[in-house]
Amino acid sequence: MNPRVNAIEPSLIRTIAAKKKPGSIDLGLGEPTLLPQQRFIEAATRWAAEHGVRYTVNAGDPALRERIAAHYAYPGMSDGRHVCVMTGSQEAVYVAIKTLLDPAKDELLVVDPAFPAYAKMAQLEGIPYRHVHMRADADFRYDADAILDTIDRATRVIVVASPANPTGRVLRDADARRLAEGLLARPGPPIWVLQDEIYRELTYIDDPGYIAQYYPHTIVANSLSKSNALTGMRIGWLLAPDAAIASLIKTHAWITSTASAFGQRVAYEIFGEPGAITEQSAWYRAQHARVTEVLDASGLRYVPIDGAFYVCVKLPHGDDSLAAALDLVENRGVVAIPGRIFGDSLEGWLRLSWVAPIEDVEEGLRRIAAI
Amino acid sequence: MNPRVNAIEPSLIRTIAAKKKPGSIDLGLGEPTLLPQQRFIEAATRWAAEHGVRYTVNAGDPALRERIAAHYAYPGMSDGRHVCVMTGSQEAVYVAIKTLLDPAKDELLVVDPAFPAYAKMAQLEGIPYRHVHMRADADFRYDADAILDTIDRATRVIVVASPANPTGRVLRDADARRLAEGLLARPGPPIWVLQDEIYRELTYIDDPGYIAQYYPHTIVANSLSKSNALTGMRIGWLLAPDAAIASLIKTHAWITSTASAFGQRVAYEIFGEPGAITEQSAWYRAQHARVTEVLDASGLRYVPIDGAFYVCVKLPHGDDSLAAALDLVENRGVVAIPGRIFGDSLEGWLRLSWVAPIEDVEEGLRRIAAI
Repeated sequence: MNPRVNAIEPSLIRTIAAKKKPGSIDLGLGEPTLLPQQRFIEAATRWAAEHGVRYTVNAGDPALRERIAAHYAYPGMSDGRHVCVMTGSQEAVYVAIKTLLDPAKDELLVVDPAFPAYAKMAQLEGIPYRHVHMRADADFRYDADAILDTIDRATRVIVVASPANPTGRVLRDADARRLAEGLLARPGPPIWVLQDEIYRELTYIDDPGYIAQYYPHTIVANSLSKSNALTGMRIGWLLAPDAAIASLIKTHAWITSTASAFGQRVAYEIFGEPGAITEQSAWYRAQHARVTEVLDASGLRYVPIDGAFYVCVKLPHGDDSLAAALDLVENRGVVAIPGRIFGDSLEGWLRLSWVAPIEDVEEGLRRIAAI
Repeated sequence: MNPRVNAIEPSLIRTIAAKKKPGSIDLGLGEPTLLPQQRFIEAATRWAAEHGVRYTVNAGDPALRERIAAHYAYPGMSDGRHVCVMTGSQEAVYVAIKTLLDPAKDELLVVDPAFPAYAKMAQLEGIPYRHVHMRADADFRYDADAILDTIDRATRVIVVASPANPTGRVLRDADARRLAEGLLARPGPPIWVLQDEIYRELTYIDDPGYIAQYYPHTIVANSLSKSNALTGMRIGWLLAPDAAIASLIKTHAWITSTASAFGQRVAYEIFGEPGAITEQSAWYRAQHARVTEVLDASGLRYVPIDGAFYVCVKLPHGDDSLAAALDLVENRGVVAIPGRIFGDSLEGWLRLSWVAPIEDVEEGLRRIAAI
């Protein structure tokens, strides 16, 4: 068997989730609690009755790709040919990491705290990786200079999630500019930036930064999962410039061939209705305001929430986030994710999602404050 | 970039398909022309209205996995935990090859003529591979002894597609027994067999062989794509024994996380209605009888069709299948796939699919006979 597969440790998130007791407050959820917009699923069902559900070309339905590219209109990748539709942003990120890096000599740089998938995917491919830690004493805000200072000769891809899971921090426009300037000023072959924008529509600040606006060697991953409560539809995509898109499509073609044509039709309908991609954002903005109030009242230290639907709270006592999460799930009826899963810099913290009813979030925070 | 990605040559099938002119007879199609059973898509749509379309666990919905395992009831893998639901059989086969082989020392053995994906996937992973050719003078029928004789010390996985794309040959029950006996008699660590059963429901002989019935180190790949005309739904699966299933699920989890929950619900409905998985088989049996008649009348040499919806025909003059396919698509209004794509042993042949209307198949054969 492939020793790299067996070397990957099982997911701690799932270990915690498996211990959940009936009636527990679940602040571990990584997906919306809203229902998706049923009208788009019904439209796809009517389309299937007439056309069947056939293969699309590997990169996805050309009409959908046009709509996606036009919606984001990033410089150098505003045409349908710059889009590859994927089985969720998971496949999108996996294909980008696998394609852009040569395991024999290149290195991935992960901006931490980060979702563990980036490092696990690199492990699976035998690609060396390093982390650059955003600082707890700066509330984990993005620091473009720290990222630039960590680059070394082997670094070929930097992955940045913004809005970030787990911290909820969002790269500012000025940070994106600074990062682009620093990268453009470097001699030698360009370094790719992979910006994971899966929480893009859940942003609560006025000046979010998109690196693709300023830096031509950017690849963007996104999906319908969070914006449209369609985690299970498995429709994501990569946006990439001419220099990368053909290779990315080739890798995708041999791994999964195509994304679901049914899901692609749902996406085609969503991108065809102005505002449909942000229709659910209002609920998150309202919930964000309520959550900020209960956090302020909780007495817990927490990371300001710029985007996404998570909040990182500091453990009131001690630093062992796994022990605290196990205590919470086993003895106190609260599912929370230990910070250490997201990198050393988040040890001593818990990641909470706040898509549960606000009373549950409030009660969960009360129990955490009491440990 | 990853040099293995760039080393993979573009698909010749797509090169030919791209030259298709309006009004051409398309005998290149690799998917059904029937419409899927709309009632199952509608049932999944009603389910989504109530439950949303959320993540399932990585391996897939447990209730679906139970139904799939029970349907096939293979020894040692008849329980839901032996199933991992995938994004089509493409991801299923990719995950199996990636997981079961160590690129540093193991080798894949591909039984040829074969769909090119197996070798391309190995190339992408840096896994060495060899071919064992079934013989043209035996009409490419499966030869268990030839397979057994080709195994060497590095061989760790043998991939056999039955029913086969491109040849339409089906492993006989006696062949499956012989292969299992030969493998069980070998000293040393067991060799895995991956049987790709994607055309299982399109079988026209009475004694098809399933290696999983006789050999405990078998992994089975299948999907809804061909049996239920759902190529675009991207629902496939692996069936695997205890020794392999956990590792396969782990690889799948990092590549695509889960298969489409909507597609899984469609599959759940299909497996819940007795006969739904074979409902469309009758059309193929009838078409098979008609196609055999027109083939016999064509004067062309062809490989007996045991299963699937392809037929391999020998070029009446010359051996250059690519030149013949280009001539057909550019000058004679027929899309046909050159045999060389499927391995050296099929050079001099064309692969034709016969899901087009029978008059088109007949006219296409007439034009091929005339070259």
